[in-house]
Amino acid sequence: MSPPLRNIRLTIQYDGTAYLGWQRQPQGPTIQAELERALKRMTGEEITLTGSGRTDAGVHALGQVANFRTSAGIPLQGFLKGLNSMLPDDIAITGVEEVPPGFHAIRDCIRKEYCYHLISSPLPQPLWKNRAWVVPGPLDPAAMEQAASLFLGTHDFSSFRASGSEARTSVRTVSLCKVEDLGSRPFPSTRARHLLVVVAADGFLRYMVRNMVGLLVEIGLGRRPAGCIPEVIAAADRSAAGPTAPAQGLYLVKVEYGPGGAIPEERSAPCLGTAQ
Amino acid sequence: MSPPLRNIRLTIQYDGTAYLGWQRQPQGPTIQAELERALKRMTGEEITLTGSGRTDAGVHALGQVANFRTSAGIPLQGFLKGLNSMLPDDIAITGVEEVPPGFHAIRDCIRKEYCYHLISSPLPQPLWKNRAWVVPGPLDPAAMEQAASLFLGTHDFSSFRASGSEARTSVRTVSLCKVEDLGSRPFPSTRARHLLVVVAADGFLRYMVRNMVGLLVEIGLGRRPAGCIPEVIAAADRSAAGPTAPAQGLYLVKVEYGPGGAIPEERSAPCLGTAQ
Repeated sequence: MSPPLRNIRLTIQYDGTAYLGWQRQPQGPTIQAELERALKRMTGEEITLTGSGRTDAGVHALGQVANFRTSAGIPLQGFLKGLNSMLPDDIAITGVEEVPPGFHAIRDCIRKEYCYHLISSPLPQPLWKNRAWVVPGPLDPAAMEQAASLFLGTHDFSSFRASGSEARTSVRTVSLCKVEDLGSRPFPSTRARHLLVVVAADGFLRYMVRNMVGLLVEIGLGRRPAGCIPEVIAAADRSAAGPTAPAQGLYLVKVEYGPGGAIPEERSAPCLGTAQ
Repeated sequence: MSPPLRNIRLTIQYDGTAYLGWQRQPQGPTIQAELERALKRMTGEEITLTGSGRTDAGVHALGQVANFRTSAGIPLQGFLKGLNSMLPDDIAITGVEEVPPGFHAIRDCIRKEYCYHLISSPLPQPLWKNRAWVVPGPLDPAAMEQAASLFLGTHDFSSFRASGSEARTSVRTVSLCKVEDLGSRPFPSTRARHLLVVVAADGFLRYMVRNMVGLLVEIGLGRRPAGCIPEVIAAADRSAAGPTAPAQGLYLVKVEYGPGGAIPEERSAPCLGTAQ
């Protein structure tokens, strides 16, 4: 009789610049394919990763989560060190945990957090190439912060949903939406203003964060009033919102799992780091 | 009779990862060579740039300054837009000004400021690849901050000077030296601590900032006491200090010029941005 399969959860950080996104595809390199190749080298098994969700081409992650099943007896620290030594240097494993057999990285997710980096500067910003959206005009952080708070709560987010999105419902609950003014940090004195948009919800529709940020930037530039959010939501029409913010400013910050999903964060036994 | 030559000052931001440093050399690409090539295309002249100083391979700049002389009548905005359209996207011009005929970017410099990005994390940090020094152990920011303040003032910095350095004197006056704890900003929740060391002086010896940061990290790791700085300075011996911090965490933040140098910052007529 073969031993029961272990269920292993990875937390992953990546710079998405060089990839076609998370999901494996024949046209070119993806995060999932790089990880599965490294896992095959370690275990000798054809492993299929279940990611918490796709990230698009050019999108980054600080705490993407994925799980896989294996019969390999490799210790958790062995996976951590082995994978990090085999992966390209724009992908790193930041946590490895053994989770209950039923854990599933998509189904059991209860909350995701994203952030989006905006640089307000009329000039190019080489040090933020592929890492932020450089908006040429001045942005009004107070108006953007006021608008961000109007996204909080449970709404139909059809106005922020990419066409062709397949989700059954477009109702989502946004539990965090704020704009943080980092001033000239982390790079001093660049005469560029750095804003961080942070958004968390029980789930996201395709391009939802990028479409929310697109509208927040319209508001920051003074083209729309901060108070327009409720009417844009009520319109339930993509054309009522703003442009889609580019991929390179977006970061999947963390993915959370609750008791119903088999592994409450406070009862987990993290190897090094936990789902972030 | 030919018209008098204009003297033009550029402020330059760059990601130094792909370059052998500032200074033109036959072995490979440098920032100076890229700029001179673009200036030749714009003016038709063989232009030699005078940079405020070299930066080494892999070192970045937020506000490098250089000047050149030209007979071209191109307006300042034309230089700004033209150069930015021709330069590779890891180099950008952030300011163009016309300065008095005598202005010289090296000779007239009165103060330079550098910063150094440290990430304390036991795990790889793909999003900081080529942009910071990832130190695997925990760092004590309070000890580092205390040690940093002991660099202030006028000292012989022989202990922090690379061997083979050609400067006539190793006495420098450090006017700013501090350690800023950015916590998990700008990237939320990575479980990595981000420290920024900021140092300004009337001039720097070769590798001086990297050698100062190397010792500050030894102190942050608890290998040396915070109070050791005065005795390390007094030793006037490179072997009394610590290791040299790697190039990729270092950023030239700004270069300042005083009234004696012909262009006090407050009287300059910036095109877009000034020397930062």
